[in-house]
Amino acid sequence: MSESQSATTVQVYLGPRSYEIVIDTAATPSFVQHLRTWLEERERGGLVGGTAFVVTDRNVEPHAAAVRKSLESQGWTVGGTTLEPGERSKCLETAARCYEELVELKADRNTVVVAVGGGVVGDLAGFVAATYGRGVPFVQVPTTLLADVDSSVGGKVGINLSKAKNLVGAFHQPLGVFVDTSLLDTLPDREYRCGLAEVVKYGVILDGGFFEFLEKHVEEVNDRKPDVLRAVVARCCRLKADIVEQDEYERGGLRSVLNYGHTFAHAYEALTGYDDLRHGEAVAVGMVRASRLAERRGLVDAKVTERQVELLRAFGLSTELPNNVELSTEAVLDRMRLDKKNVGGRIRFVLPTRMGHVRTFDDVPEEDVRAVLAE
Amino acid sequence: MSESQSATTVQVYLGPRSYEIVIDTAATPSFVQHLRTWLEERERGGLVGGTAFVVTDRNVEPHAAAVRKSLESQGWTVGGTTLEPGERSKCLETAARCYEELVELKADRNTVVVAVGGGVVGDLAGFVAATYGRGVPFVQVPTTLLADVDSSVGGKVGINLSKAKNLVGAFHQPLGVFVDTSLLDTLPDREYRCGLAEVVKYGVILDGGFFEFLEKHVEEVNDRKPDVLRAVVARCCRLKADIVEQDEYERGGLRSVLNYGHTFAHAYEALTGYDDLRHGEAVAVGMVRASRLAERRGLVDAKVTERQVELLRAFGLSTELPNNVELSTEAVLDRMRLDKKNVGGRIRFVLPTRMGHVRTFDDVPEEDVRAVLAE
Repeated sequence: MSESQSATTVQVYLGPRSYEIVIDTAATPSFVQHLRTWLEERERGGLVGGTAFVVTDRNVEPHAAAVRKSLESQGWTVGGTTLEPGERSKCLETAARCYEELVELKADRNTVVVAVGGGVVGDLAGFVAATYGRGVPFVQVPTTLLADVDSSVGGKVGINLSKAKNLVGAFHQPLGVFVDTSLLDTLPDREYRCGLAEVVKYGVILDGGFFEFLEKHVEEVNDRKPDVLRAVVARCCRLKADIVEQDEYERGGLRSVLNYGHTFAHAYEALTGYDDLRHGEAVAVGMVRASRLAERRGLVDAKVTERQVELLRAFGLSTELPNNVELSTEAVLDRMRLDKKNVGGRIRFVLPTRMGHVRTFDDVPEEDVRAVLAE
Repeated sequence: MSESQSATTVQVYLGPRSYEIVIDTAATPSFVQHLRTWLEERERGGLVGGTAFVVTDRNVEPHAAAVRKSLESQGWTVGGTTLEPGERSKCLETAARCYEELVELKADRNTVVVAVGGGVVGDLAGFVAATYGRGVPFVQVPTTLLADVDSSVGGKVGINLSKAKNLVGAFHQPLGVFVDTSLLDTLPDREYRCGLAEVVKYGVILDGGFFEFLEKHVEEVNDRKPDVLRAVVARCCRLKADIVEQDEYERGGLRSVLNYGHTFAHAYEALTGYDDLRHGEAVAVGMVRASRLAERRGLVDAKVTERQVELLRAFGLSTELPNNVELSTEAVLDRMRLDKKNVGGRIRFVLPTRMGHVRTFDDVPEEDVRAVLAE
């Protein structure tokens, strides 16, 4: 396979469901070569020139067009669907539409579902791939930084119910993931910053050295420099893969470290109706609150929190809720009590114990949480 | 655990997804004891007295009531849904209703979905269990002979699309299966005979000795004698488990032997609109046609077919299509060409090579198929 000098690969080891994440720049035309390799490795080589179903949304349709062109040039039959952008598309009705279109395409168990988009497109397309024909091959071409570092590892796919996000889904590992960092060139600033919140999170929870790397490369990151971007995406994917490899089906509790900042963030998002506050923005605020809670519990000193505040701000993220959002301490606490990660009625917090390490706590006194929320 | 003297157990070995099928008579009250054991074995013992969601249909609602009572008497919180009987309930809309009801019940990842019914109830409830919360425990209490011997092994769950049966689904192994043969006492004759067609199939494809056992016990089988029924169900489950254990995800082609008679049957069912002909009835006719095709190919002598015809008739099954069903040879052939098990455009047939053994053939000349269809 011809591969550009610049490509980095992250291997996700999950036994027969192992796969690779190729991270490259301006390389979308070579997508189909990687797909061929992935199929051959699964002894599905006979499928080259098979049928693909490309799921995307209107915002990133040009990227999907490039992927379709790459497939068609190699003799693939290509169908697909273009969603309305936004969380509302991640529903059972959209999945049903995809199923009907797959039937029209005469898709069989060897048809490859390709997601070209952010988290919504990936989650929905992955759910369709997990359930059509009891599971067909699935490939991701993420188009947001958040999807690059979060959705491309873990195998979680799913849809929302009207009353509950992500409540219906499956674990369906992809055949492979193809990250082209040049797709981030056109990503709106706000979306890019949301991805950076999760990038910072990986440093805090798992890798103090990576956090330092980010501190030293703020400018290159903000300028979306390709070589730094590839290094950042690769490091985040590797860190998440290390966790997922040990706890693929989220049985052991290990995956919960990934929820640093999220106990606060989920409550903020739910209370603001997911509109005023993007997920990454809520996570940025949530991490700082969690770190202050850790200070209050004597787990870390103020410096650990300050470094997070400074790095997040350097990346253009606010570490306080927007001025127009006013949430009472009690409302936030009530909402936190509903978190599905809680066990036995106690709110579960992931708190830092030093830079690069976190632990899960079920015994945080509510007075400390209240104090941090009121700050 | 107290277990009646009469119970038989079939162990399905699938690594961490292994489970047991308990086959007993008039034992529904002890269902909850088995459930407790199954949960304890998965180290989910803390869930005893947890939450269960019982899916059933109107026809077998009394059986579901007994299961619910058994659960409630041991402190379980029980919710559930009762479907309209019939294939039409096995759709995305019904699944959506179950999801909403699970949310109402505040179901979490430890909520147990219990299917009390035949194949439709089992397939739908299993699909809901496979996808709610990315997979919750699933238990089957089959109420038809067909579900006892077919749906309780294999882990295939799914729903129909308007244009395609079983096209959306998953592999989701149950936590355990509880067969109470006394539930068959009230099964309508026609349903019972449909199950017997699949029972005969297991003998032809995998176990000549079992076929002989059936020949010798026609009367007891027709009288639904409990001890013979338990032996029959246990043997069929064991035979299917032997196949599924080697090819859990239907990748290797081994599972295709279970499709003996089904290439014909699926075409007959599709062309008659699934109404005039039940699945088991179509399989009975299909097996005899397949066996005649094997004769014509010089694989078996006429005696092998004759024994099937005689046994099926002794069980009250017709080996010819009903008089009111007239299908042209070409229409059946056309439909067979659409079978999703075909490879490379050739119709795939499973044919006997002796009593108790079958093989898959992709090279049967169409003139032979035509001749058998025209007989």
